[in-house]
Amino acid sequence: MSTSVSPLARPFPDLPPVAGATPSVARAGYKDWDRNDITLLRLAPGTAVAGVLTRSLCPSPEVEWCRAALAGGRARALVVNAGNSNAFTGARGRAAVDAVTARVAERLGCRANEVFAASTGVIGVPLPIDRAEAGIDAALAAPACSWHAMAEAIGTTDTFAKGAAETAIVDGRTVTLVGVIKGSGMIAPDMATMLGFIITDAAVSPAFLQDALAAANRRSFSCITVDGDTSTSDTVLAFATGAAGNAPLDGDDAPGADAFRAALDALCRTLAQLVVRDGEGAAKFITVTVEGATSDDSARRVALSIANSPLVKTAVAGEDANWGRVVMAVGKAGEPADRDRLAIRFGATLVARSGAAVEGYDEAPVAAHLRGEEVEIGVDLGLGSGRATVWTCDLTHGYISINADYRS
Amino acid sequence: MSTSVSPLARPFPDLPPVAGATPSVARAGYKDWDRNDITLLRLAPGTAVAGVLTRSLCPSPEVEWCRAALAGGRARALVVNAGNSNAFTGARGRAAVDAVTARVAERLGCRANEVFAASTGVIGVPLPIDRAEAGIDAALAAPACSWHAMAEAIGTTDTFAKGAAETAIVDGRTVTLVGVIKGSGMIAPDMATMLGFIITDAAVSPAFLQDALAAANRRSFSCITVDGDTSTSDTVLAFATGAAGNAPLDGDDAPGADAFRAALDALCRTLAQLVVRDGEGAAKFITVTVEGATSDDSARRVALSIANSPLVKTAVAGEDANWGRVVMAVGKAGEPADRDRLAIRFGATLVARSGAAVEGYDEAPVAAHLRGEEVEIGVDLGLGSGRATVWTCDLTHGYISINADYRS
Repeated sequence: MSTSVSPLARPFPDLPPVAGATPSVARAGYKDWDRNDITLLRLAPGTAVAGVLTRSLCPSPEVEWCRAALAGGRARALVVNAGNSNAFTGARGRAAVDAVTARVAERLGCRANEVFAASTGVIGVPLPIDRAEAGIDAALAAPACSWHAMAEAIGTTDTFAKGAAETAIVDGRTVTLVGVIKGSGMIAPDMATMLGFIITDAAVSPAFLQDALAAANRRSFSCITVDGDTSTSDTVLAFATGAAGNAPLDGDDAPGADAFRAALDALCRTLAQLVVRDGEGAAKFITVTVEGATSDDSARRVALSIANSPLVKTAVAGEDANWGRVVMAVGKAGEPADRDRLAIRFGATLVARSGAAVEGYDEAPVAAHLRGEEVEIGVDLGLGSGRATVWTCDLTHGYISINADYRS
Repeated sequence: MSTSVSPLARPFPDLPPVAGATPSVARAGYKDWDRNDITLLRLAPGTAVAGVLTRSLCPSPEVEWCRAALAGGRARALVVNAGNSNAFTGARGRAAVDAVTARVAERLGCRANEVFAASTGVIGVPLPIDRAEAGIDAALAAPACSWHAMAEAIGTTDTFAKGAAETAIVDGRTVTLVGVIKGSGMIAPDMATMLGFIITDAAVSPAFLQDALAAANRRSFSCITVDGDTSTSDTVLAFATGAAGNAPLDGDDAPGADAFRAALDALCRTLAQLVVRDGEGAAKFITVTVEGATSDDSARRVALSIANSPLVKTAVAGEDANWGRVVMAVGKAGEPADRDRLAIRFGATLVARSGAAVEGYDEAPVAAHLRGEEVEIGVDLGLGSGRATVWTCDLTHGYISINADYRS
């Protein structure tokens, strides 16, 4: 972890244990640092697994491994390496993943495709198999650790540990969902990755878990951006141990399915926002809401065009109500828009509507809003009922310092 | 013009006059500044015109006016306003363009749709009609000025005046093509626009001029990026006065058509590169070449993904041969790519191939290359024969200072 904590950081919450899931951490020594950098999460037999993985066409071998293993739908363990992403390492990187998963499978007496793996850190250096194997054995020998300790061990340039929990009533029982996540928004020098892990004691079929995770992802992890750069290793995995003993959730007709989806949605949204709060150089948390689009997807693309615009992000950093840059970002998005129906607000104040500035709007509440730590930009396209919200951070000197004032 | 000149600036070249085209400049006083801010370019009767305009769906009324007027194919005048973009100003902005073009048409005795208009500067404030009309009259009364004076008068936050010329032999005669351009890469505070004007004495049909300009645009202005932000007002217009007296170029079979296209291509490429050289905060000029793609268009999209990546641009600013970030940008482009065929070079040095680092490559020439002012990144996708080159600049503290340490 970095010593300079993001001003947008949140304290790590008290997270309950999840029956059927046992995290432990150890030191593999992937870098010359004094910290835990390998995490092993053991899972009860029968645990269901689902995942969403980077769409990068240059993915890490861990991503390829997980994509294949997800077809089996069951997980007994997760290994997370921090300090080396093992991405773009050719056949040697693939051999490292094979070795890591085989080692865990042999030690736990399970199939290799029940072992999931994720790595984050420097690109282009094969994961050292000897250190990984020794680290796995050390983690197996270590006592169970807290979710907080796991969140710290999976981090790289993160400035604070990130986790959250939700509960839901399913089939008359209270089930718990816990999540830990790492990432400074896909923007860390050489360590560009978001890894998120969700663990629940609910009994859920792999197919329903996958469907619920994919839906939650579209409203959370797919709605955040720090710099528009997509990692080779982005991974979110959800594990359901079934220890809560509810009748398995296997579709939307099952009792508690709605409650489970709502809890998963809320958890993913919280975790995603925590990543933005650790965006490198971030000083302000920005919520962009677009409504009146021709569809929700169209609204999301317009919102991301605004949230990815360096001009919008620097304007917020400068506390400048520069709505002309928002017009620019709407216009370049390539989605249906009609300049003369467009309305824009900062906070609660409408600054432009019907294709022109609102004459004589009160600038005082706008200026006060922009001086705050949380900034809201609202756009109404005036065309339909499509709507989306995305989250990002401002673009500051801190981002340049972290990513340019640096030599690998 | 700003007082702090880009380190990548080029001196303004000696540009010859173009028969049939007469520029003049004056002070409309669009801002409280001591400089010329209105330009009038008078053109001989029969001058052909072509143009490429922003694809923004929130364009300025000037862009809409030009798009409609281009259908006529003929131009007698161009008016350029600096300091006010007149964009997003509703009905009052449209009225201002009507007034400006009507005034020039009345004074010159031509049709209004033979008068072209472009404006650059603050968004959201209607162009003051009284100042524009007085400025037009002052420019009409002023003596002809140099292309250098015109390049200065159309600039806003540009740090140096930008122009270039080419010649071609057409039908046994030497024709001249001159161009002036303004823009700091669509990134200036509230003054975000690229405006380019090309003037030639060649006789060219409007249809052939449009075809040649559109083709040149695809290899020049459409291949530059500073921050990926697209202006509401981007405009490139080409005027052909016909004063050279050649047999009109009306198709690719006409004598000299190839030479004219080549000169126009070269001129557009030079002008486009000058805009990158004035990119705000730019300290290095970056050429990204992608080859081995499945098509030229695919290559261009991959190259732009690299050139727009904040991580790649900050790495170059930090003189860091961080090829992992190039892998990331290729992977996120959404174009056909195969990680295991990918090769990457900095300057002349291959640093990665076949999906992994080149073991033991010589880092000395790479470091020396990155310390220079001109940086080349080469990518071979290994899939086909598609190829493209794009140009960009690095992302530095200067960009943040200009765009964030600022309040409108």
